[in-house]
Amino acid sequence: MADNVNQLSAEQLKEVNRQMTLYRQGVQDIIPPEELENKIARSLLTGVPLKIKLGLDPSAPDVHLGHTVVLNKMRQFQDNGHIIQLLIGDFTGKIGDPTGKSVARKPLTDEEVSHNAKTYFEQFSKVLDMKKVELHYNSSWLAKLNFEEVIKLASKITVARLLERDDFDERMALHKPISVHEFFYPIMQGYDSVVLENDIELGGTDQHFNILMGRHFQEKEGKEPQVALLMPLLEGLDGNDKMSKSKNNYIGIDEKPTDMYGKTMSLPDHLMIKYFQLITDLSPKEVDSIAKGLESGERHPRDEKMRLARTITRMYHGAEAAQHAEQQFISVFREGNLPKYVTTVVWEGEEHVRITELLVILNMLPSKSEARKMIENNGVKLSGETVKSPHDTVTIQDGLIIQVGKRKTVRLARA
Amino acid sequence: MADNVNQLSAEQLKEVNRQMTLYRQGVQDIIPPEELENKIARSLLTGVPLKIKLGLDPSAPDVHLGHTVVLNKMRQFQDNGHIIQLLIGDFTGKIGDPTGKSVARKPLTDEEVSHNAKTYFEQFSKVLDMKKVELHYNSSWLAKLNFEEVIKLASKITVARLLERDDFDERMALHKPISVHEFFYPIMQGYDSVVLENDIELGGTDQHFNILMGRHFQEKEGKEPQVALLMPLLEGLDGNDKMSKSKNNYIGIDEKPTDMYGKTMSLPDHLMIKYFQLITDLSPKEVDSIAKGLESGERHPRDEKMRLARTITRMYHGAEAAQHAEQQFISVFREGNLPKYVTTVVWEGEEHVRITELLVILNMLPSKSEARKMIENNGVKLSGETVKSPHDTVTIQDGLIIQVGKRKTVRLARA
Repeated sequence: MADNVNQLSAEQLKEVNRQMTLYRQGVQDIIPPEELENKIARSLLTGVPLKIKLGLDPSAPDVHLGHTVVLNKMRQFQDNGHIIQLLIGDFTGKIGDPTGKSVARKPLTDEEVSHNAKTYFEQFSKVLDMKKVELHYNSSWLAKLNFEEVIKLASKITVARLLERDDFDERMALHKPISVHEFFYPIMQGYDSVVLENDIELGGTDQHFNILMGRHFQEKEGKEPQVALLMPLLEGLDGNDKMSKSKNNYIGIDEKPTDMYGKTMSLPDHLMIKYFQLITDLSPKEVDSIAKGLESGERHPRDEKMRLARTITRMYHGAEAAQHAEQQFISVFREGNLPKYVTTVVWEGEEHVRITELLVILNMLPSKSEARKMIENNGVKLSGETVKSPHDTVTIQDGLIIQVGKRKTVRLARA
Repeated sequence: MADNVNQLSAEQLKEVNRQMTLYRQGVQDIIPPEELENKIARSLLTGVPLKIKLGLDPSAPDVHLGHTVVLNKMRQFQDNGHIIQLLIGDFTGKIGDPTGKSVARKPLTDEEVSHNAKTYFEQFSKVLDMKKVELHYNSSWLAKLNFEEVIKLASKITVARLLERDDFDERMALHKPISVHEFFYPIMQGYDSVVLENDIELGGTDQHFNILMGRHFQEKEGKEPQVALLMPLLEGLDGNDKMSKSKNNYIGIDEKPTDMYGKTMSLPDHLMIKYFQLITDLSPKEVDSIAKGLESGERHPRDEKMRLARTITRMYHGAEAAQHAEQQFISVFREGNLPKYVTTVVWEGEEHVRITELLVILNMLPSKSEARKMIENNGVKLSGETVKSPHDTVTIQDGLIIQVGKRKTVRLARA
């Protein structure tokens, strides 16, 4: 690879450094950083923009704030004139699970794929300039491969290399079966990069192995290998697992302002700074100042969490809607009684539940008699309204907030 | 699977037993024997003949006596009215070695494949009735598979199962690379059986794993699984390695009577009975009687080896040609001077060599001066002719026999 950096003028070098600083923000890993630098330099010298690939699973189009970690990074590249290549992985989606074991992975029809792609597009338009985005479907090249071409592709990677992937490695160690076709998912992802000739592939750290496949296959085909740009995974509202729809610990990009605001307020304190860094448009300097203020005790966690909730709601719904959501949140919890944070519980039971039973199931009170006493003392509220009778039946609604006394608060989510 | 054996008449049962006894002769392994019995029974009940598959490598069409171990077994099935399916594995032959590492495995053209198939046909006709044989080329179904179909096929077998194959297992243990495409050779062989719907697959014991793939994939596709019928591997003339062209330790099915006879005479004694059993048309009773005679010392190994050489030559060239080859062999070695056996040495050097140098290279004499002395004493013969001068230059010919004194004899083969 030519060393483009050496050919730069002082001004161009400054521009490379500026972009590098920007792209490094919040990133977990760049593999390898010197190649990214060299690619930016080449782009400056030739005027040819870089191509940045992002692979998308066509089966789960609900975009949440976890996705925006990567989308915001893409936006930075786009703002600097580079080209975003969105890749819909429809080939695997259309195959489904050939072992037939997973009901969840039943084959998608062409209609479903294009509907889901449209959903992505609409939601991504809140972060990216979709007019400048390239859209690709990998079925357009993968479906055409014949057996001979598949064999040639497979000859370019070893069994040992694929077995290095963490999940394969673990399953082999535990003697759990790995079907041979599973080897093809990383191989396909690598081959997509051969076809797209992209310079960079973006993804979460859980895509580390698969994104390095792109480097591997591009090199085997004599092309300049892509740089892997790995973003940290965003924990969901439970503070443990990666944000995902299946864990019901997410904030959807399309959610109503009040839900967006309220859900953000349920976030554990220790994740606030990570959220500020990865999914808001606050500058690194601002985030840094918040972090320091919280550490020294000069800033109050509750105030900063309200700022986070306001910022996120503002980004997707505008300043006015954010203000309004905040007012509503405050009125529900009555000023001065705001909890430090609200636990979200996924409700998998019946739609209608006796209030005393609900309080026991949620572990908010130890027994139905304790629950009855607390209600009779006006100590239980549903979304700000005091419960009058222990014989009331509650209709479960997504976002219902249950308060017991001044300290215990739970937010329900429908399963 | 229906138990067909229970439905047989006494006479039919006798016939099943007769066939089973025949097919068991000389076989290393039948997996599983009760299924073979059941298939024969079904064939008797329905009148539908069994289909017996034999896979052939289209890149090496020179048929030698090692191949006839399997061909003779096929002939037995054919004589009982069953159908032989010869499968030319041209799909892999046309791909060659996609890693490009093996020069030997360069892709074959359509012309080469059909020429090689023709060569097989001509040579097999010495053992099989080729008018009754089905001929298949696996490219006619494998070349048509698309990526989706390949993935579905690959989903039916696990990585762990394939890694059980001895050579894969060893290479993994030694950290030697296995390319992913290598997994497809056993998978393809299994899929061939799905398409052919054969009842039995024949092969050498080195095909054990691959032939069981046929059972695996037929079962996965809901078909009655084939029975594996594994024949022992025939050691070549060196007494160590499997007979093969690349080891130059073979007797070709197309060789001249004198070469066939002479090469057989170079066989180590301990392999004689195996050769009688596996590649001659002598009955099990006759072979048994020879084995017992040799063991008790009533029969002389040299006489029995001449019988073996005569029998093999007679099978491929007729009784008269066999007799003639024997006479010629005796005259070369002068009666009474026959060596117990002749070592075959593969000559990889120049075509023309000074006789003294040759004797030293072949370790027949310790030095050129010793060689000169021996020649001057008329102690060296080339194919029966006494060498006159130590300054003679020898032209290396395939089958050249070099004798030093009465005990040391070497037969040359061209590399």
